Amino acid sequence: MGNPDHLTTQAVRELNQADVILVPKKGSDKADLADLRRQICNKVLQQSVPIVEFDLPVRDSTSGTYLDGVNDWHAAIAATWRRIIRQALPDGGTVALMIWGDPALYDSSLRIAERLLNAGMQVQIHMVPGLTSFQLLTAAHCIPLNTLGGAVMITTGRNLRDEGWPEGCETMVVMLDGGCAFQTLEAADYNIWWGAYLGMDNQILMSGALADCGNQIIAKRAQARQEHGWIMDLYLLRKRDTET
Amino acid sequence: MGNPDHLTTQAVRELNQADVILVPKKGSDKADLADLRRQICNKVLQQSVPIVEFDLPVRDSTSGTYLDGVNDWHAAIAATWRRIIRQALPDGGTVALMIWGDPALYDSSLRIAERLLNAGMQVQIHMVPGLTSFQLLTAAHCIPLNTLGGAVMITTGRNLRDEGWPEGCETMVVMLDGGCAFQTLEAADYNIWWGAYLGMDNQILMSGALADCGNQIIAKRAQARQEHGWIMDLYLLRKRDTET
Repeated sequence: MGNPDHLTTQAVRELNQADVILVPKKGSDKADLADLRRQICNKVLQQSVPIVEFDLPVRDSTSGTYLDGVNDWHAAIAATWRRIIRQALPDGGTVALMIWGDPALYDSSLRIAERLLNAGMQVQIHMVPGLTSFQLLTAAHCIPLNTLGGAVMITTGRNLRDEGWPEGCETMVVMLDGGCAFQTLEAADYNIWWGAYLGMDNQILMSGALADCGNQIIAKRAQARQEHGWIMDLYLLRKRDTET
Repeated sequence: MGNPDHLTTQAVRELNQADVILVPKKGSDKADLADLRRQICNKVLQQSVPIVEFDLPVRDSTSGTYLDGVNDWHAAIAATWRRIIRQALPDGGTVALMIWGDPALYDSSLRIAERLLNAGMQVQIHMVPGLTSFQLLTAAHCIPLNTLGGAVMITTGRNLRDEGWPEGCETMVVMLDGGCAFQTLEAADYNIWWGAYLGMDNQILMSGALADCGNQIIAKRAQARQEHGWIMDLYLLRKRDTET
């Protein structure tokens, strides 16, 4: 999540044992994410491991459906990975990719890596678990994720906006939400715990009744995004009539 | 999760900076969990930090409802913590508790700590996020947690048994399930990824169509539990008609 202190011993060891570390650049407005990966490497690498930066293809949001666009994008990234890996390791070896958060949650590196297999490249895939944003969110706010014995839904802003609040749901974590989808809810019924840049120096936290602080979060988010050029944030919503 | 390699740098530092580390014993059949906490401390402590073991009160499963029983149990644990902390640190200081998994997920240490506040004890609570079991599960099986853009439900065996599979749900993580609640589902509709003792030397993994391996998991689980005297396990279920 951008803070070297949040790496596990396993993750540090795997980075040190790699033959090359691939670092994607997503364009100038997210340049400090690539810089952060470099800073983390500088801090935890005990030996020299080559870092290869590459330009990540841009997703074409105009092509067909959302899923079509994502599939095309993944195919383009897989092609880039193949090219870069063959250049960097013509005789094979171990490539490390640093994932923001946990590699299993709303990250498609695993799906993209499987495309290498499907394209006939001989690769073995190995996942290293890592802290993800909602763990930093609950720790920073010092709250439990679930109500006592209750279920938790982890979802996206898109799903919340399109499908609403599921019947019987007490706690929802909303990720990947550039549009503050909590605005589609009946504000009086929910509490919200929001956080941005979690675990980093510029971490921001806000929480309270959604009716009280929803608009403040929208304003703060817009302001922070403009200041930094990018934002990564998420929030937890809980029905106000439930006890934790 | 029992493997020192899965601690973050932050967790190691906080343990080293504590004035005392409390280690609960839950009775002889779970003794190796207390032993594991001691082993982890031995491995990561760079200085001598006193470790105080204490007997955790036993939950009375016969008293009132499930929630009543849990509340009484939490009250008893909080009283024990107060007593132990006052004995160990009569002039105040920093107490560390090692949580199995992430402290926000199906762990009540935070709720119990809040009882200290409510009882008038002057405490500041600080949570350190940690890897939790479903992250080790997805990493070990090398699978994504969510389908592409899809939601994930994290729940308990009790909830799955009592409430069934929610309409529209694609992926469910089931924790705290001593009764293999997946037996209540229409097996033909699901795939399962199961794991026990995750991240530890005796880790066990099984996966496949629920119709094919559900009974094998039940048998394997019973056998492993008997061998070790205890088991911690969980599983991920995915509807078979969804793509990841």
